[in-house]
Amino acid sequence: MDPSAELTSRLARFVVGSRWEDIPDSVRHQAKRTLLNSFGAAFGGCCDAAVDHALAVLQPFSGPAEATIIGRNERADVLTAAFVNAVSANVLDFDDTHHPTIIHPAAPVAPALLAFAERTPTTGPQLLHALILGVEAECRVGNAVSPWHYAHGWHITSTCGVIGAAVAVGKLLALDAQRTAWAIGLGANQACGLVESLGSMAKSVSIGNAPRNGIVAALLAERGFTAASATLEGERGFARVMGQNADLSAIDRDLGSVWESAKNTYKPYPCGVVLHPVIDALLELRTQHELRAEAIERVTVRGHPLLRQRTDRKRPRSGREAAVSLQHTVAVCLIYGRAGVAEYSDARATEPAIQAFGERVEVQDDPSIPVEAAAVALRTVDGRTLELEVPHALGSLGRPMTDAQIEAKVRACAALGAPTISVERLIDAVWALDRSEDAAVVARRSALHSAT
Amino acid sequence: MDPSAELTSRLARFVVGSRWEDIPDSVRHQAKRTLLNSFGAAFGGCCDAAVDHALAVLQPFSGPAEATIIGRNERADVLTAAFVNAVSANVLDFDDTHHPTIIHPAAPVAPALLAFAERTPTTGPQLLHALILGVEAECRVGNAVSPWHYAHGWHITSTCGVIGAAVAVGKLLALDAQRTAWAIGLGANQACGLVESLGSMAKSVSIGNAPRNGIVAALLAERGFTAASATLEGERGFARVMGQNADLSAIDRDLGSVWESAKNTYKPYPCGVVLHPVIDALLELRTQHELRAEAIERVTVRGHPLLRQRTDRKRPRSGREAAVSLQHTVAVCLIYGRAGVAEYSDARATEPAIQAFGERVEVQDDPSIPVEAAAVALRTVDGRTLELEVPHALGSLGRPMTDAQIEAKVRACAALGAPTISVERLIDAVWALDRSEDAAVVARRSALHSAT
Repeated sequence: MDPSAELTSRLARFVVGSRWEDIPDSVRHQAKRTLLNSFGAAFGGCCDAAVDHALAVLQPFSGPAEATIIGRNERADVLTAAFVNAVSANVLDFDDTHHPTIIHPAAPVAPALLAFAERTPTTGPQLLHALILGVEAECRVGNAVSPWHYAHGWHITSTCGVIGAAVAVGKLLALDAQRTAWAIGLGANQACGLVESLGSMAKSVSIGNAPRNGIVAALLAERGFTAASATLEGERGFARVMGQNADLSAIDRDLGSVWESAKNTYKPYPCGVVLHPVIDALLELRTQHELRAEAIERVTVRGHPLLRQRTDRKRPRSGREAAVSLQHTVAVCLIYGRAGVAEYSDARATEPAIQAFGERVEVQDDPSIPVEAAAVALRTVDGRTLELEVPHALGSLGRPMTDAQIEAKVRACAALGAPTISVERLIDAVWALDRSEDAAVVARRSALHSAT
Repeated sequence: MDPSAELTSRLARFVVGSRWEDIPDSVRHQAKRTLLNSFGAAFGGCCDAAVDHALAVLQPFSGPAEATIIGRNERADVLTAAFVNAVSANVLDFDDTHHPTIIHPAAPVAPALLAFAERTPTTGPQLLHALILGVEAECRVGNAVSPWHYAHGWHITSTCGVIGAAVAVGKLLALDAQRTAWAIGLGANQACGLVESLGSMAKSVSIGNAPRNGIVAALLAERGFTAASATLEGERGFARVMGQNADLSAIDRDLGSVWESAKNTYKPYPCGVVLHPVIDALLELRTQHELRAEAIERVTVRGHPLLRQRTDRKRPRSGREAAVSLQHTVAVCLIYGRAGVAEYSDARATEPAIQAFGERVEVQDDPSIPVEAAAVALRTVDGRTLELEVPHALGSLGRPMTDAQIEAKVRACAALGAPTISVERLIDAVWALDRSEDAAVVARRSALHSAT
């Protein structure tokens, strides 16, 4: 049989047939980590100008204010809230990463479910189950078209995210297999987002649309709004139009036994993931040797060529550019001893001392070093050379963040972006979600002035 | 100079600099024809199931009901109305066609402007000017990526339409050049829609999003929501990601002197445009010889190979399939003597007499015949052969529909889909739009129970 035959239908049947009882504990737990981390990222991003603009533009057209805007006072209709919350969750690139594809899985999917759950009674297990299946579909479709898709210029979190959101909301709606296949098709038909936009606010418009349009796709499908039967695998379908030599079998290979959603990882630092082992090494060296920036004459970083290609960027002009600048990152680590959200603000990016320090940074390609590793050498003004090699960055698959570290990240982001929320009550609610009758409690507790 | 350098910016500057006084009369008049024809197409489509579903799904999230739903009683917020009206205008494929690209120019752009004008005071010339510039941008971007773009699988009306809508609404907002470039970028970042979806309702979801998301793009840009400076021409931008060897110079070649918007054409029949010369020939032969279907033994159609490739389809199962079926089209022409909206309904598609008659139809490839031409030969049961060759189908560039024919189409579509509207008052208002202080009058008069 042609391995792509009826692929859209087969994925739909898996989603429909999946039972909460079949989901392994480790996968369930990872879903809670994914959700909690996404709240943290959204707290960090919820005051970004992109979020302000999106709210200001969409609120005049918003319907019933049934849904929470994470980390803020405003409420909006379900579709608008899904849009805005996805922007918050992703805008700093501080969200989760599925490494095989570099998809940020939660931002397009979780906001759709959270907003939906505020309108329609949903239990915690239902929401977690839908999140798991949505992320699974999103990442598997991403696997099928990777690495060509992103390299060619598709912002994969948006393009695959809308499909994941459609699947997830379709599961909450308990769509049958035919309607789930239509929801997938309607999601794929709205897949968009250009890599050219990264570094500008434009990236947020397709990220925001992903959960919004995923909800619309699922609701349309529920009513009988049809899609082509082979939207993923067809001759003019998603994988052939937005992929090249796509590995379609990746979509349903080992479905139900291998969980892509369990491979999710979380970032301890709000910047390009290739920079993370460098930060680990610098912070460790700084603490170990009680270093001050003035004591450093030269910083030499050896890493996978991607490190140089993506981040060799002197004197960034904005927080967004700083987040993909090795020079800036080295400077804030050594000057401030931190690499948190505050260190990637526009103000920090253009600080003269930071920009000047960047001139002391050198980067060397070493293809033998994996992407999640880096080697740092510091030459001090008094002639010492201090070296450290980090084999697995914190937050990588090789050294995942612990639950406690994710909690700490959420607290730090909330302190910065949503300081009056009851972050402990939200954290407790997320960990208890698999035993909760009311999934919307986590959405409500993420509002700035939460009553429940 | 690299011909693509600053292309997005150059297009933006043209839009910003364009004055109503500079628009030739013929281009202005064509804009009114485009708008009038689009109302006709929307009247024909406004009761389609896709429209019902879209309204049912979106209304619960709709904000202030400031905008008209064409041909219906409902009202909705501006974004929802733009979505639904674009679906109505395009769902039957009875809308306009820009032949070099096969874009349907009006559906993604006009609904954005009409809805916007109901919220924000807009004069008739402002609306027409914005329509002209939006269609110009849409078709020129389409020219740059054609023919590869559509052939590869991109539903070009959606993908280029959202850019056109962003440009058009940006003009109404009087954005400056920087903000217009951002609007273009935010539009391009939302470009989506798969050819695989044609023939299912799924095509309507990206069509509906085009004007909706174009409005959002322009409003975001107005507030300072940034996009990459080279979203059209950049290395990971629209033309390279969604095109192959794109002719970027087509975007600004002869801007302001050659008007793509003036090349718009209108369809007399709600079916695939390759079928139109066949219909002309059959209706002419039927009248000329006072033929009845029972008198016909065999129908032989010679045409460009595209005719066979796109429409050789026996026994279609739905109105949508019938609209791309030569067999169905020949049958309704000879049995009913018409090829209007009613002849492409689901009921007609499955009528036994029509399906049986399709068996008598033969199609022959003749690459020497242009797409807008066809040759038809009828063999009668009494042994005669009646032949007619149509060199230019009605509605083609070689034989455009007259203003009166467009009016007649609007009346026929209104009679079918929106029988209680005052169609004459709407027609009058469209022709007078270039002298009107209030562009919204045409939107209001397209409502089913219009008071003004």
